[in-house]
Amino acid sequence: MALLVQKYGGTSVATPERIRHVARRVARWRRAGHDLVVVVSAMGDTTDELLALARQVSPDPRRRHPRELDMLLTAGERIAMALLAMAIREERVEAISLTGSQAAIITDEVHTGARIEEVRAARVREELARGRVVIVAGFQGVSRGREVTTLGRGGSDTTAVALAAALGAERCDIYTDVDGVYTADPRRVPGARRLVRIDYEEMLELATSGAKVVHPRAVEIGARYGVPIRVLSSFRDDEEGGTLIGTRAQGMEDMVLTGLASEPGHARLLVRGLPGGMRPTSAVLARLAAAGVSVDMLAQVDGADGRRALQLTVLEDVLPEARAVCEAAAAELGAEGVEVRPGLARVTLVGSGMHGRPGVFARAFEALMGAGVEVFAVSTSSISIALLVDGAQEDAALAALHAAFGLGEGAR
Amino acid sequence: MALLVQKYGGTSVATPERIRHVARRVARWRRAGHDLVVVVSAMGDTTDELLALARQVSPDPRRRHPRELDMLLTAGERIAMALLAMAIREERVEAISLTGSQAAIITDEVHTGARIEEVRAARVREELARGRVVIVAGFQGVSRGREVTTLGRGGSDTTAVALAAALGAERCDIYTDVDGVYTADPRRVPGARRLVRIDYEEMLELATSGAKVVHPRAVEIGARYGVPIRVLSSFRDDEEGGTLIGTRAQGMEDMVLTGLASEPGHARLLVRGLPGGMRPTSAVLARLAAAGVSVDMLAQVDGADGRRALQLTVLEDVLPEARAVCEAAAAELGAEGVEVRPGLARVTLVGSGMHGRPGVFARAFEALMGAGVEVFAVSTSSISIALLVDGAQEDAALAALHAAFGLGEGAR
Repeated sequence: MALLVQKYGGTSVATPERIRHVARRVARWRRAGHDLVVVVSAMGDTTDELLALARQVSPDPRRRHPRELDMLLTAGERIAMALLAMAIREERVEAISLTGSQAAIITDEVHTGARIEEVRAARVREELARGRVVIVAGFQGVSRGREVTTLGRGGSDTTAVALAAALGAERCDIYTDVDGVYTADPRRVPGARRLVRIDYEEMLELATSGAKVVHPRAVEIGARYGVPIRVLSSFRDDEEGGTLIGTRAQGMEDMVLTGLASEPGHARLLVRGLPGGMRPTSAVLARLAAAGVSVDMLAQVDGADGRRALQLTVLEDVLPEARAVCEAAAAELGAEGVEVRPGLARVTLVGSGMHGRPGVFARAFEALMGAGVEVFAVSTSSISIALLVDGAQEDAALAALHAAFGLGEGAR
Repeated sequence: MALLVQKYGGTSVATPERIRHVARRVARWRRAGHDLVVVVSAMGDTTDELLALARQVSPDPRRRHPRELDMLLTAGERIAMALLAMAIREERVEAISLTGSQAAIITDEVHTGARIEEVRAARVREELARGRVVIVAGFQGVSRGREVTTLGRGGSDTTAVALAAALGAERCDIYTDVDGVYTADPRRVPGARRLVRIDYEEMLELATSGAKVVHPRAVEIGARYGVPIRVLSSFRDDEEGGTLIGTRAQGMEDMVLTGLASEPGHARLLVRGLPGGMRPTSAVLARLAAAGVSVDMLAQVDGADGRRALQLTVLEDVLPEARAVCEAAAAELGAEGVEVRPGLARVTLVGSGMHGRPGVFARAFEALMGAGVEVFAVSTSSISIALLVDGAQEDAALAALHAAFGLGEGAR
């Protein structure tokens, strides 16, 4: 008899038949006595289809008409939530759907990428008190000026966890098309194992490093407000399984690594023979920022000649701009030249157990060397190590690391 | 330099290409210096497609989940209005789309068939004052309890004329797929002629008698608030043509008839040998009302034996219920029996010039007789005559009447 927030993604409600399936699941939870708030995404490819329509009337709707694009895209969740409410009511369970505006998901004014400022949960609480399942449109909100906004990527996950926090829900269950968080992508690493639990920080590292299971914004809110998040499959009928994202249990025996994530589409730029000192490096970074280029990893090595090699990595999307900026800066600052390596993948090792443990780097490099994988750049945080490898070797790198750290063994 | 309301129906915005076409038209009007409010319907078959989705999760969404159905269907206009706003902005004309709620189209609480109670035009006026074209979603409103409602059939026409009335607009232009109101349906009567103008009452008769050009609710509001309504084609590029619906010009020489409308799907019930007096007739009518049957035409003839024949016409949709009620009543009241004639069409002659003119009935019956068309029931109002004929003879009846009253001749 708890208050739960459940979130169903686009694939879980892609067809009327799947919507009925979700409705039966929701009805089971309701009959078991739980209070339920259900956050829903647009059906299947609806958002992409709406975006395609917009592109037929404007070459760049996101930049040129962000307010109208938000108005357009929010139709997607509206359709899904109304259908889900009907389907739940057909199960003889009282239900009502609320838009982001009706549920008072208050955001800033930034169309197509708004951030939630506040959730005024009065209306949701009132409907819950009337015994209804409350269905809330994911991904959308309303600004203080009463304009309709959307939250951008990962918006529905964010809506769900923010609502769970505002309502003091016992848990936020994210239903998706996979049955939990794995030690590595099971489609890439055959021995990958589902994690029974993971802490917020590790999940955040995995999510920002390419694991697409839950959006990092949602994990951040969960961490800040202490909302337990469970990731599980809407395609399985048992309620077992899944992965619980929460605070680390005291005294738990940590493995060195928790999991691996990876992401293609990275590139490395190496500016050689830059004059030493802070100023030239700083100049290069300032120009990249002015050109709107976001730098992922950064490293610098001073040579014996007092000259410095500056290594940057960026997403391949912005490589042309990044290259142009670096080449102009190199010429102006008297550097030797710029070397570019596209086609790289970033493989990230995540585990709060790695901090302060000796030999993690050694084990990783040894494993990669054994698999014939070269490392083009390295970056670390307290609970992660990111490595850039050749894109064609992404799977080989994952397999080698997964085996080397024993991720496929034992339960957690 | 006037304030105009324009309404574009579903076929006018069925594709992104047509939306761009409408945008160019709106931009032309705006550049000519007019203030514009544009009311838009859902694209093409969107509403039917959404309804089909609803029927896949519920056998009868309209009756079982009216609130959720409204939530669902309003997604249709939201999509169309956002796309139209983008397309107009692409023409370098400032535009903003508003939902029924944002435009403060205040309705009663009756989901799927709400009636407009008030239009609080402050937001629309504010956006107009900022030099923007204001696009408003047709067909939708918001109740005082802030629930999303839809207006039912003809809703977008109604939104447009109600907005024009609230704003004191100079005119409401209804853009549709035909270029005006005709003396008869031109697909049925080859000699049918477009009317240059028609008065509200005549238009109301035509619209309630099967002419689908403008919805009667919109005409009623236009008449009440004196809003001139112009019906014209969105597929023609000249702004000439169309039909102006307004108050009769003084001293205008009226033709006897203005136009014809027709509608299939009617049936006649004849209760024979009912006891005389008010009570038995009244009893039959009360039972029909209790069964939810709406009676269209009613006539009674008392026989020499003091018994009465009661003739009723109903839509064929409700014929089974009507028949059952009449048969039960006939048995109970000691009538001779009930005779049923399905498959009839109602042909209506409309013209405010017919009132007080002798010979209109005679001319109509003579024309029909000449064409071999039998009349099964007649009903009149001050400006119309409705005749029930065999459904198979609907076109023949229209052609004969159109010729007999000279509707194809001269201009008006």
